[in-house]
Amino acid sequence: MMRHVVMFRWKEGVEPAHAAATAGALRRLPALIPQIVEYACGTDLGVAPTNFDFAVSARFASLDDYITYRDHPEHQAVVQSMIGPFVAERSAVQFDES
Amino acid sequence: MMRHVVMFRWKEGVEPAHAAATAGALRRLPALIPQIVEYACGTDLGVAPTNFDFAVSARFASLDDYITYRDHPEHQAVVQSMIGPFVAERSAVQFDES
Repeated sequence: MMRHVVMFRWKEGVEPAHAAATAGALRRLPALIPQIVEYACGTDLGVAPTNFDFAVSARFASLDDYITYRDHPEHQAVVQSMIGPFVAERSAVQFDES
Repeated sequence: MMRHVVMFRWKEGVEPAHAAATAGALRRLPALIPQIVEYACGTDLGVAPTNFDFAVSARFASLDDYITYRDHPEHQAVVQSMIGPFVAERSAVQFDES
């Protein structure tokens, strides 16, 4: 098993409603991309002022399965319409859970 | 349930052995801090050149349980001896999984 974690800082002016819509669109992906084993995402709870704004944490059986997800048209549609144009900063890591 | 994700970029010159030792020290925490429901961490697999170097993804029943972990002396010992002095960049998000 491996895990993919990614987080974003939204551009100034991006509304909470956009973040909620993005979470909704991402949460539909496990039903569309069978390689996803586990998938969670959401908006930062505001405990630490230096935190990023939004994160995804997902599990896959293999790095190949993660790549399939990464490049999947349903995922790319969300990335290109709801994430890319709205994100000021992004950080990601894929790591082996075993 | 809520999830805590954090990632680091190590300072230049930090060796892979240090990252492995840090992962080992962090992986002992679930046995020491009962508030941890699920805990995974590891070194970036190198698929994306812009990625950070290391990440932790952990689950807690509540934000209070996360705070207990965050401030727990066993966690703080790892943060202060193995993470803080060696980290160039850090990003984190806590989000609600429900």
